[in-house]
Amino acid sequence: MCSPFLSCLSLFLLALSPVAAIWPAPQSLTKDSSVLYLHQNIQVTYNGASMSYIYGYVPSKLTGKEVVQAGVSRTLAGIFNSQFVPWKLHKPHSNWEPDPSQGQKWLKTLEIVQSGQDQPSTFKAGEVDESYNLTLSAEGDVKLNAVSSIGVLYGLETFSQLFYQHSTGIFWYTPYASVLIQDAPQFPHRGVMIDTARHFFPVSDILRTIDAMAWNKLNRLHVHVTDSQSWPLVLPSMPEVSEMGAYHPSQTYSPTDIDRIQRYGAERGVEVYLEIDMPGHIGAVALSHPELIVAYNEMPFWWWCSEPPCGAFKLNSPAVDAFLEKLFDDLLPRVAPYTAYFHTGGDELNKNDSMLDDAIRSNSSTVLQPLLQKFIDTQHVRIRKAGLTPITWEEIPLAWNVTLGKDTVVHSWLGSDSIKALTGKGFKVIDSNYNFWYLDCGRGQWLSWANGNAFTMGYPFNDWCSPTKSWRLVYSYDPTAGLAPEEAKLVLGGEVAVWSETIDPANLDTLIWPRASAAGEVLWSGRRDASGQNRSQLDATPRLNEFRERMVLKGVRSSPVQMTFCTQGKPEECEYAL
Amino acid sequence: MCSPFLSCLSLFLLALSPVAAIWPAPQSLTKDSSVLYLHQNIQVTYNGASMSYIYGYVPSKLTGKEVVQAGVSRTLAGIFNSQFVPWKLHKPHSNWEPDPSQGQKWLKTLEIVQSGQDQPSTFKAGEVDESYNLTLSAEGDVKLNAVSSIGVLYGLETFSQLFYQHSTGIFWYTPYASVLIQDAPQFPHRGVMIDTARHFFPVSDILRTIDAMAWNKLNRLHVHVTDSQSWPLVLPSMPEVSEMGAYHPSQTYSPTDIDRIQRYGAERGVEVYLEIDMPGHIGAVALSHPELIVAYNEMPFWWWCSEPPCGAFKLNSPAVDAFLEKLFDDLLPRVAPYTAYFHTGGDELNKNDSMLDDAIRSNSSTVLQPLLQKFIDTQHVRIRKAGLTPITWEEIPLAWNVTLGKDTVVHSWLGSDSIKALTGKGFKVIDSNYNFWYLDCGRGQWLSWANGNAFTMGYPFNDWCSPTKSWRLVYSYDPTAGLAPEEAKLVLGGEVAVWSETIDPANLDTLIWPRASAAGEVLWSGRRDASGQNRSQLDATPRLNEFRERMVLKGVRSSPVQMTFCTQGKPEECEYAL
Repeated sequence: MCSPFLSCLSLFLLALSPVAAIWPAPQSLTKDSSVLYLHQNIQVTYNGASMSYIYGYVPSKLTGKEVVQAGVSRTLAGIFNSQFVPWKLHKPHSNWEPDPSQGQKWLKTLEIVQSGQDQPSTFKAGEVDESYNLTLSAEGDVKLNAVSSIGVLYGLETFSQLFYQHSTGIFWYTPYASVLIQDAPQFPHRGVMIDTARHFFPVSDILRTIDAMAWNKLNRLHVHVTDSQSWPLVLPSMPEVSEMGAYHPSQTYSPTDIDRIQRYGAERGVEVYLEIDMPGHIGAVALSHPELIVAYNEMPFWWWCSEPPCGAFKLNSPAVDAFLEKLFDDLLPRVAPYTAYFHTGGDELNKNDSMLDDAIRSNSSTVLQPLLQKFIDTQHVRIRKAGLTPITWEEIPLAWNVTLGKDTVVHSWLGSDSIKALTGKGFKVIDSNYNFWYLDCGRGQWLSWANGNAFTMGYPFNDWCSPTKSWRLVYSYDPTAGLAPEEAKLVLGGEVAVWSETIDPANLDTLIWPRASAAGEVLWSGRRDASGQNRSQLDATPRLNEFRERMVLKGVRSSPVQMTFCTQGKPEECEYAL
Repeated sequence: MCSPFLSCLSLFLLALSPVAAIWPAPQSLTKDSSVLYLHQNIQVTYNGASMSYIYGYVPSKLTGKEVVQAGVSRTLAGIFNSQFVPWKLHKPHSNWEPDPSQGQKWLKTLEIVQSGQDQPSTFKAGEVDESYNLTLSAEGDVKLNAVSSIGVLYGLETFSQLFYQHSTGIFWYTPYASVLIQDAPQFPHRGVMIDTARHFFPVSDILRTIDAMAWNKLNRLHVHVTDSQSWPLVLPSMPEVSEMGAYHPSQTYSPTDIDRIQRYGAERGVEVYLEIDMPGHIGAVALSHPELIVAYNEMPFWWWCSEPPCGAFKLNSPAVDAFLEKLFDDLLPRVAPYTAYFHTGGDELNKNDSMLDDAIRSNSSTVLQPLLQKFIDTQHVRIRKAGLTPITWEEIPLAWNVTLGKDTVVHSWLGSDSIKALTGKGFKVIDSNYNFWYLDCGRGQWLSWANGNAFTMGYPFNDWCSPTKSWRLVYSYDPTAGLAPEEAKLVLGGEVAVWSETIDPANLDTLIWPRASAAGEVLWSGRRDASGQNRSQLDATPRLNEFRERMVLKGVRSSPVQMTFCTQGKPEECEYAL
């Protein structure tokens, strides 16, 4: 890319610049330092046919062409509308901006070639090829090649991160031409888990989260949609469940809402899948179907569950089974067009609950395990019948020794020992190690403490997983650390978890971003770089500073990464090296 | 208040309700359970004269009548526009809302009587009487009595917290009539400190913060307006200082901005005062006046200061003195109409800096102390000449043994031993104990760590004052704990500190609120209640849940206190008692 000597030199100089662009890091990137300007009338083609830039385009159906048309439109709108004049990334009074009065060389063409045919499964988890190649010549020709339309979307996102607005407000440019990028993800499962049961999130918050996920090349939104605290999910076959179980009629997801969320995600390469956590964490069902639940809101809660209100399905109840048959018949056909997965939960089931179940009256694992085995088997048959792959939390195989179908994906949260044990047993794993990737941690208890002994016991009121997982700690985590190669292959990826006991729409964005971005780079680019070295905070920080500004300007209230002095300064001014 | 037996009974029932209203807690409150409706045409009088409700009224001058007129208008607009239908505070499907079809009893009059004359000093820190009495009879007559217009504003704020919107959207009511409240603050200084130098905050963010402070009866906004990282303060006498020292031309406060901020505060009972931190924490001056500063951006920073870029005033420099004379001549007359204070900083001065000062070349306290004494004396004479009282950080008297004028207020941050030492020496003290009231703590380092030994040393990248101070920890702190009565009297109050290394407009609100509210109740109501007992989280939590909803609905993105299950449930469902 840098055959003339001067270009090579300027490439070297750019490497020292605080502006480094592109989050998450591509597998390979070379760039130079020619300036090219972008005009709204750039000629875009898709597989040889002209494609116009249509502001606000919504795909009429989930086909490659429609999805790419919408992606092109979002990409160009994002560049032209987000007003990203990057003064925060340069020393004040320094000469960092190109001078348009010295003439402008324009981008001429954006030629998109998709070599593969999309399948309906392209828009779900699975075998979709997410790779892309992007080249931008110094002459102004852009070529974006990908196998799938999802790969095209990723390439377009990367393309958009090459551009800035000029401070005159009437020019947009990249200072990096020529550019050569080859890119593909390290892990197929790159997720965010949100919890809409402790606090409800309006559809708009979820769509905005999907937007930001797409910018981060995160591709799985796991919605922990129900729990013992509330049941926001409307089931047309059993409307009483959300009527009684939601916090308020306004705090529900109708089938239209769910379809809209999943569809919105599919159009952006983000698969949205649901979890109905069971057989524990299901107390809200007792508000409409008390006969199905044991230990609902029993006190003191810590004897029966980890958080009030308690409540678990009766493990040996034909009525529970009939309820779940009806629920899955209602729900699964609606979600299956957009996802390959359904998460049946299974964390933190408390043995004591079944002591209150007249049909069981025991907290012995020997009694309960076969009942749980049958319960899980029955539900997973239903999941598979709907064409979906079941996911469970790790306690089901590890703590309860339930035998699972080999297709089942296990979602781990208890850390490295669990990952090792699960992959050792041959399970495919999604990793949400709470020591690193629980984004709710470290902001204090949700419980209030009485004066006296309780106060003394609770003081200083930290939560169970304090302290806060800073983006640097999130970034330090390697989901495959300590695994043998054949074990590591079973790690599909991971999810940052955003449990919402103390999170609602007011602080959602600031707690997800930029920390999910840090996990996103680990999952897309790998914890280690091409040379096998752990990625360094020193490389990541300026890129994340820049990317964070892009997120904020596009409407996501990401927390800042560093103070402006650091983003404007030489990187070493805010670094520690020995 | 509850002479008929039935009213007494319902008073008892209300005490069990999760809806408890009024934050911070008044000194005394009795309420009953009659419903009264509020109409926009309520008859308001001020000292006997009719006062109309004029939406958006801005005082033409700082007089009691003008300030009260604006306060009345804000109060009624707040009730009618914030759409606070409190379903989050009641069990779903329970019967908690009055039925307007059963007839409405209306509030008739709001009679405001101010017994004292406002002085110009009423709108500054000082001797202003902030007390008020509020009575609301079951017949619909409201009497609000206060000595000062600031007391009237507090009474109006309390009045507004008695009201809800009906879910029909066309009625507003209080369910608490009759009400009798007597109220006055425990501490005269109830503050929030913001830092506009690590990250800049637009005027709109500061005004919104003032709004929320007024709702919390917090009365001092301390703006740490400059530091070594940036100088956003425009000085017309020396425009080069902000031209070179600000992050960007858009990131400055003009004299008009400062006047607008202070004036906006004064109209709401919030005194805004400025800090120019010196002689350390002043490196940004080097960008325009390098001859005044030693050790600017010296590396490694930890040898010269606590955070990059380093930079301190030369301690024995006539040029520095001339600069400060010009600065204070420019600035002090502009800020003095709105405040009684000016904060000259003085924290974390590093002795090593003067080793680089050709006129000193020493890091010996014996050499430096007399120079610092003279430096402080000279600046404090200037502050007093402008009619202001100087404030310094605690290091000036405690670490440097500088003798201060007896009027000087000392701002403490290093905790209880410092408070004890300062009050023992007879200083008036403002308390920002970092173990409890530093709201920036616990979200991770601002510094990035190189791979290798630095990584190992920095891991897990917690900041120096981790973990996060949760609202419960903030609430547990008593600024007078461990002090003798005569020492306790010297504690004017405290401030929560919001240092902004990792805080900018995106996350400001979520990090200040509701934690500043918790400190606000300690400062207004006292850590102990009227019976001498420590206030309990069990009493505070439902009130803070409710108050937080009010803040959000009026446009402040406060973090949530508890999940909706807790706010809707019986309090004991989310409590821990032994």
